[in-house]
Amino acid sequence: MTTNGFSGIQKVTIVGAGTLGTQVALQTAITGHDVTVLDVSDDALTKCRTNHEAILKTYLARDNANDTDNDNDNQARGWKGLSSVTKSAEQVVEETLNRILYTTDTEKAMKDCELVSENVPEVPEIKASTYTNLSKYCTNDDTIFTTNSSTLLPSDFVEHTGRPSKFLALHFANGIWDANIAEVMPHPATDDTITTKVLDFAKDIHMVPFHVQKEQNGYLINSLLVPWLNAAQSLVTNGVSSPADVDKVWLISTGGYHHKELSTCRAPFIIMDQIGVPLVAGVLSYWGEIHNDEQMKANGAYLQEHYVTKGKVGITNGNPKEDTIEGIYSYPNPEYMSTDFLK
Amino acid sequence: MTTNGFSGIQKVTIVGAGTLGTQVALQTAITGHDVTVLDVSDDALTKCRTNHEAILKTYLARDNANDTDNDNDNQARGWKGLSSVTKSAEQVVEETLNRILYTTDTEKAMKDCELVSENVPEVPEIKASTYTNLSKYCTNDDTIFTTNSSTLLPSDFVEHTGRPSKFLALHFANGIWDANIAEVMPHPATDDTITTKVLDFAKDIHMVPFHVQKEQNGYLINSLLVPWLNAAQSLVTNGVSSPADVDKVWLISTGGYHHKELSTCRAPFIIMDQIGVPLVAGVLSYWGEIHNDEQMKANGAYLQEHYVTKGKVGITNGNPKEDTIEGIYSYPNPEYMSTDFLK
Repeated sequence: MTTNGFSGIQKVTIVGAGTLGTQVALQTAITGHDVTVLDVSDDALTKCRTNHEAILKTYLARDNANDTDNDNDNQARGWKGLSSVTKSAEQVVEETLNRILYTTDTEKAMKDCELVSENVPEVPEIKASTYTNLSKYCTNDDTIFTTNSSTLLPSDFVEHTGRPSKFLALHFANGIWDANIAEVMPHPATDDTITTKVLDFAKDIHMVPFHVQKEQNGYLINSLLVPWLNAAQSLVTNGVSSPADVDKVWLISTGGYHHKELSTCRAPFIIMDQIGVPLVAGVLSYWGEIHNDEQMKANGAYLQEHYVTKGKVGITNGNPKEDTIEGIYSYPNPEYMSTDFLK
Repeated sequence: MTTNGFSGIQKVTIVGAGTLGTQVALQTAITGHDVTVLDVSDDALTKCRTNHEAILKTYLARDNANDTDNDNDNQARGWKGLSSVTKSAEQVVEETLNRILYTTDTEKAMKDCELVSENVPEVPEIKASTYTNLSKYCTNDDTIFTTNSSTLLPSDFVEHTGRPSKFLALHFANGIWDANIAEVMPHPATDDTITTKVLDFAKDIHMVPFHVQKEQNGYLINSLLVPWLNAAQSLVTNGVSSPADVDKVWLISTGGYHHKELSTCRAPFIIMDQIGVPLVAGVLSYWGEIHNDEQMKANGAYLQEHYVTKGKVGITNGNPKEDTIEGIYSYPNPEYMSTDFLK
């Protein structure tokens, strides 16, 4: 089977079977590509396969076979149009699992591979040794290497890839099928035709591609989110306001109340709970140090002290209507999902 | 007639008949209060009355007499529930205009006045002389003075009010009936009972009140908007991305596509057009100077050079579906209102 896609890329290797690697592998396979998941750990691969089966159950639950007009709002944006009158959702699931190979064998994983998506931990030494190893076993000079690193730049690793002109960032968001963005960021020596090909590949896997035209820490979305979350937390850290008030004022001022349902409304502290409070605290502390920004450091410390150390970590990928967890808000049924929240 | 409101305040004087003063006066009157509009210019008062009549026509157009469940999404948030089975929208309009007095006579305007909303230009000398004059003619020691200043703090003028404990900020957004927030910000010497009373008054005029607990430049909403707009413009100024791509990535990542209709979606550059590009350019340049922030200064200069000097000022209070104007986007029917925008 071929995808008849824009890029012509069919065989893809996902390196690293963590949260993001698992999601990228599933999204690439469900859109018709042959996927190999490579990890150093058999346990990680087993967990990855289990997670794929669980995610595919949510695909089935959200699928609507009558969704021919692509307007089923319950279905994830990245999953629209996969099932059809000629192919049931059950068939999509079966074929998807059949297209994924899980292995610890780098040589096997790199054979005939056309595109690599690297999703290993954000530790420079691990990234460097991974690229050195992949390069050693990659027999095809045309293979494109992409990194899904959130915090590091392609330039940081290009020397280890053995293919500077065919290396760039292809960055996804957590919950890749819902927030279906793909940020494509070359380094200065990336070949333009390769950038174009990867933008096309992003479309092939049902992403909306964004060309980040210069290397930029945080790509596009994190470059917007970090200053915004930091500004929101500054108001709380400095005793000016409360998380719920900040969220309310944002939602009213930016027309957030026009959402079809309250569970989809997004404001700074609602988003902190979804990203995970420990991650937000870590990012603010880290960038506060890097930029020597006292307010940002104080904001990271505040979140750490008032939430993280108390086990209030947020809802991340959970269901705010069902899960019992603390974050900035209390779950299930946080106050922002009450119809009175904006009154 | 009395409002039977939370605050007990009935007689309100609006000082300054500009854009915001006109809106505050109308909203205060339409919710059942006796309003005096005071300005130094007869022409300004005539224009204010004309604008009141025009705004009340939009109220009639948006009103739905059957809106007993307060769920008419077309109606402004601040106008819900004004008409009823016993009172038609036409009656509301007639009574509203009958409750407003327009005058250039400070003595008359201050007689029996319970609350003042000051909306004069953001020039420190004008504010100071206004408060000195109001204080001179205010015969009631209990009268509360509020400032609607967006850029200056209550502390900057408290010495001219003659009533430090009864002075504070009561700040509204442009389009007060839609973005129906009221930011109530005391200075350190404001009496707590006065702050509470003004929060209650905000509810009486159908606002959602927010207590800004410490003096903060930009209150809550502008404290969030400015860093966010600045971060967005940085990506464009630095050649990393384009306005439309930045808006798309925001809307997809924060679930903005869940809005009932595309015309209500909000992202950084869409909002810049609604605020008005010259104002955003001015704010970024000003704060860039104050904070000695080179990136922010460059962002203000970029907007000035690429848009403002070319007459691309945005849509502000206009209708994006009908008006012909340039901004970051081209109107009418900007690309962000196309159903393909997020595909």
